[in-house]
Amino acid sequence: MKIGVFDSGIGGLSVVKSMLAHKLFEEIIYYGDTARVPYGTKDKNTIIRYGIEAVEFFKNFELDMIIVACNTVSAYALDEMRESADCPVIGVVEAGILACKNSLEDKNSDILILGTKATVNSKAYEIGLQDLGFTNLNAKATGLFVPLVEEDIFSGEVIDATFRHYFSDIKSSPDALILGCTHFPLLEAELQKYFGEKTQLIHSGEAIVEHMEKEFSFTKKHPKTSLKFFASENPEALKRVAHNWLNI
Amino acid sequence: MKIGVFDSGIGGLSVVKSMLAHKLFEEIIYYGDTARVPYGTKDKNTIIRYGIEAVEFFKNFELDMIIVACNTVSAYALDEMRESADCPVIGVVEAGILACKNSLEDKNSDILILGTKATVNSKAYEIGLQDLGFTNLNAKATGLFVPLVEEDIFSGEVIDATFRHYFSDIKSSPDALILGCTHFPLLEAELQKYFGEKTQLIHSGEAIVEHMEKEFSFTKKHPKTSLKFFASENPEALKRVAHNWLNI
Repeated sequence: MKIGVFDSGIGGLSVVKSMLAHKLFEEIIYYGDTARVPYGTKDKNTIIRYGIEAVEFFKNFELDMIIVACNTVSAYALDEMRESADCPVIGVVEAGILACKNSLEDKNSDILILGTKATVNSKAYEIGLQDLGFTNLNAKATGLFVPLVEEDIFSGEVIDATFRHYFSDIKSSPDALILGCTHFPLLEAELQKYFGEKTQLIHSGEAIVEHMEKEFSFTKKHPKTSLKFFASENPEALKRVAHNWLNI
Repeated sequence: MKIGVFDSGIGGLSVVKSMLAHKLFEEIIYYGDTARVPYGTKDKNTIIRYGIEAVEFFKNFELDMIIVACNTVSAYALDEMRESADCPVIGVVEAGILACKNSLEDKNSDILILGTKATVNSKAYEIGLQDLGFTNLNAKATGLFVPLVEEDIFSGEVIDATFRHYFSDIKSSPDALILGCTHFPLLEAELQKYFGEKTQLIHSGEAIVEHMEKEFSFTKKHPKTSLKFFASENPEALKRVAHNWLNI
């Protein structure tokens, strides 16, 4: 299978990392729109336009499937991307929702969704989770998390103060915490520490690979995956990060 | 005079506010590239390309001058914008440098420059200040300041922790602090408190208007300025902020 992975920037590499660990694909084409990142603060129509442009880009390769690794694009542009594409398009939001379905037996489980402003405003996670019968939902736009990660700040007093800023009104730790942005898994350790071991963290990048593994019949594992990286700006920087992060 | 003001987003409205206070111009056309903001984390070539596109946009109006309100664009794209434009182009960085010249008599004054990653990497302020004979220069990319302002966080423990994060190695307060980004004046009060009254804050938006007032002979004041606002995304949001902020 030849897979396209789209993200607004480099965050979607976490999804590629999960894909490589599961050895499912022969070829992965990654495209990061680094010239226009971040999407999380942008307007719905702009996000849709950028999503369609990514589909057009992927038409240069004969893909079997496009994975939208960006939560914001998945929340807003999936229908429009599907209309433009000539292959299936799957987004991380649906995968995150299915992961909740699979791992939370109690429909009264208390779920806290974290995302960018655009993802939270879309209510995409809430709508999907309500359709599955979950009722105890809360969402927070944690706008500082992406810049914190991009500043390489993963722990310490700035993180502690930021968590208190966003979470001071949360009286008891949720049963599940959805990390609804590809950058957020980098704060996983501190979030787990803050909320305690009771809270189960849902990582949408990992969820999408598990989802695909269940949905599609993979006849064989691919220990070697061919990888190609494209970026709308500074592709060398993206390749450098990819090589370090993915150990390739 | 008919003036174009360009910024990557809404931050340049602080420059318009200074312009209105000085009553120098008959007409101001503001263009914010809100669909692609922020520029401060982007690549040099991308910033230059976006700067030239802004000049092309302004060719729709017969302008007497273009003011680049964005420090990052001023630092990287001014020469290329001047080549493309058919009117003078002035940037906030030169104005900030001239403001230091005018307000600091001692060439040994200790100057701390704050900016986005791109502005600081460009060394535009250092090069200009060194040309004027200043030698005691230090620069810091304070990447969290823009997202903090955009999250409406202007004081409190997140700001305190962030200041300690960036400034812990600064042993004594500088004589002057250059707020090298249009967002930073919104943190002015807390920065003044952190560094103390000894430190003089240089606000590049205010500096550019003072610079123009000195350089050009304005024969009369314009108590009423015609204002037009354009944005590459969500112009209504930009107009709303402008109306609130500028009291128009």
